[in-house]
Amino acid sequence: PSLNYPLSEIAAAATEKDKFLASFPYLKSQLLELMTSEGMPADAVEWVSNMIQSNVLGGKLQRGTAVLSVQRTLKARELGKPMKEVKLTPLETARASVLGWAIEWLQAFFLVADDVMDDSETRRGEVCWYKRKEVGMIAINDAFLLESFIYSLLEIHYGDDEDMHGRLRDLFIDVTQKTEFGQLLDLTSQPQGGPIDLKRFTEDRYKQIVKYKTAFYTFYLPVAIGMITGGVRSARAYEQAKKVCCIMGEYFQIQDDYLDCYGKPEDIGKVGTDIQDNKCSWLVVQALKEAGEKERKVLEKNYGSWDEGKVKKVKELYGKMGLTEKFKTYEEESYKQIQKELDEVKELPREVFELLLKKIYKRSK
Amino acid sequence: PSLNYPLSEIAAAATEKDKFLASFPYLKSQLLELMTSEGMPADAVEWVSNMIQSNVLGGKLQRGTAVLSVQRTLKARELGKPMKEVKLTPLETARASVLGWAIEWLQAFFLVADDVMDDSETRRGEVCWYKRKEVGMIAINDAFLLESFIYSLLEIHYGDDEDMHGRLRDLFIDVTQKTEFGQLLDLTSQPQGGPIDLKRFTEDRYKQIVKYKTAFYTFYLPVAIGMITGGVRSARAYEQAKKVCCIMGEYFQIQDDYLDCYGKPEDIGKVGTDIQDNKCSWLVVQALKEAGEKERKVLEKNYGSWDEGKVKKVKELYGKMGLTEKFKTYEEESYKQIQKELDEVKELPREVFELLLKKIYKRSK
Ligand SMILES: [Mg+2]
Ligand SMILES: [Mg+2]
Ligand SMILES: [Mg+2]
Ligand SMILES: [Mg+2]
Ligand SMILES: [Mg+2]
Ligand SMILES: [Mg+2]
Repeated sequence: PSLNYPLSEIAAAATEKDKFLASFPYLKSQLLELMTSEGMPADAVEWVSNMIQSNVLGGKLQRGTAVLSVQRTLKARELGKPMKEVKLTPLETARASVLGWAIEWLQAFFLVADDVMDDSETRRGEVCWYKRKEVGMIAINDAFLLESFIYSLLEIHYGDDEDMHGRLRDLFIDVTQKTEFGQLLDLTSQPQGGPIDLKRFTEDRYKQIVKYKTAFYTFYLPVAIGMITGGVRSARAYEQAKKVCCIMGEYFQIQDDYLDCYGKPEDIGKVGTDIQDNKCSWLVVQALKEAGEKERKVLEKNYGSWDEGKVKKVKELYGKMGLTEKFKTYEEESYKQIQKELDEVKELPREVFELLLKKIYKRSK
Repeated sequence: PSLNYPLSEIAAAATEKDKFLASFPYLKSQLLELMTSEGMPADAVEWVSNMIQSNVLGGKLQRGTAVLSVQRTLKARELGKPMKEVKLTPLETARASVLGWAIEWLQAFFLVADDVMDDSETRRGEVCWYKRKEVGMIAINDAFLLESFIYSLLEIHYGDDEDMHGRLRDLFIDVTQKTEFGQLLDLTSQPQGGPIDLKRFTEDRYKQIVKYKTAFYTFYLPVAIGMITGGVRSARAYEQAKKVCCIMGEYFQIQDDYLDCYGKPEDIGKVGTDIQDNKCSWLVVQALKEAGEKERKVLEKNYGSWDEGKVKKVKELYGKMGLTEKFKTYEEESYKQIQKELDEVKELPREVFELLLKKIYKRSK
């Protein structure tokens, strides 16, 4: 496929997000060209075009644009200048955007499949891909294709640099597997089809699910990509990044769980249903941790049901147990803990993480 | 994970298949060790142990053992000896078996997902994995894990040889994508949930589905693996191998389709249901190609139904149209064509392909 980057569109775009978005149509075309050159018929190429458009776009692109931020931080350090004075060139932006979009393709792969596994109805405000009548279970193969395109993008754009290509491919393979481990922990935390078993919602399990299912691909992946392309080679630096990113990921998910119950629908873009869905949410884990026999009975009777009265009982219990205050306390403490960890990070500019932290800390959506 | 190979078990095993099987428990343990060292809890490791046992085993292991045959052919050429006099050492067998098992893991990944997509009931004589009540849609994530373990096996056993590791990883990534393209062609050859549209069962479409869905991972993959580990580096040799393998793959699938209708259940291990399942089988493609208006109407009325009378009508039409004779003619011709192609293959020993051919030609199961 042709490697022309949208340099003038990138130069003309006002925001980092718009610069990032400028690459999307080019990357998509390259993948469709690849299919055509493989001899795939027009109807199959058209299917994939639709499928990419419907599943890769529509999110907040936080993971993808994070690659640009990380790259810029590392460039600033290299030049010895403050971040504000440093911009990526259009070509640097385009090359980093390929990797940011690779994360978005990975995310699309996970989400398409997750919605089938969770029997979900909507995603990003639209009906789920697998719920469209012309799609159905073809969505599973579509998810596979989305994953496989990650490696096509890496090959097309980084294939001429064997070392870099190898490192990037290994990173994506590794983070993908870790996320799949996280899904496994999540999916097996309750018996399939059987009765709800709240004993399995422990704090340990919760932390492990979050670390694997979310933290690696949401926080560590963009940071590690920037480190690889920025030439960081110290294994210790990657270990440090992993540690900080996992703490940030935990905070991010706990906040997500909190907002599912207490966020405004206008802000979070959906009506939270973790209680109805019997989710292993931070809130229920905290409630169970402190519950006496009476409270546990309330949860056992009411959690995981779509009955409005039951949902209300669970929320009342959360209120009585002071979970909002508990969350605020946790939020302050985790912020301090992250700052302390950042003091230990010597091999990477602190800004890499502070930038990510700023994007998520005390967000309302 | 520990790299001890089962060298004495391999030496003691009588057949190639038994030598191959000797590695399975070791590879499985290494993957479970990997999960444990990642901090996965015992219940998740146990789940994966069961999942691997139930899905990777149970097949004919033709693809996996083919890696051993290819390796042996290339060794014979290197030593300038006839194949009969050449054996792989236990260590060579063990190292090649890792790659053969990687194909079996890939196959398991495809089959677990394919059964969900096709809404199948049984596989290899057992109830499908996703049909077990404790599994359900978790099967989708299990399929992902099976795929991800391919790369763990490559990393564990070939990670110290960067060049070889890179080539093997690229090959698996490429063949996986091609197979997914094949699934896409197959899945979109009929409208989802809509009425059957026999016009879409053309010979061209059929050949493309077969090439992508089956030929690459069944024939080209074991051959190319042997070529990589055997040190073959000429791009032309890989192109030749691809060409021959695709012709063999086409023959293999056409035979599979023929046996689905005309094979004995005792031989093929199942009762064929391609007619009922509205499959784009070679038989219906041939029938449609030659059908006049009357024959086409018979197919339109009766194909793709579980009604026994309708199935019988389709089979009667196949008989009247002489499809068995057509198959015999095709079989002879394709054999000749393969032989002719083999005459062109200069950069690889002919035995590589003849061995595979012998495994499949005029098989009754
Ligand atoms: Mg979900
Ligand atoms: Mg889920
Ligand atoms: Mg949530
Ligand atoms: Mg099937
Ligand atoms: Mg299928
Ligand atoms: Mg068949």
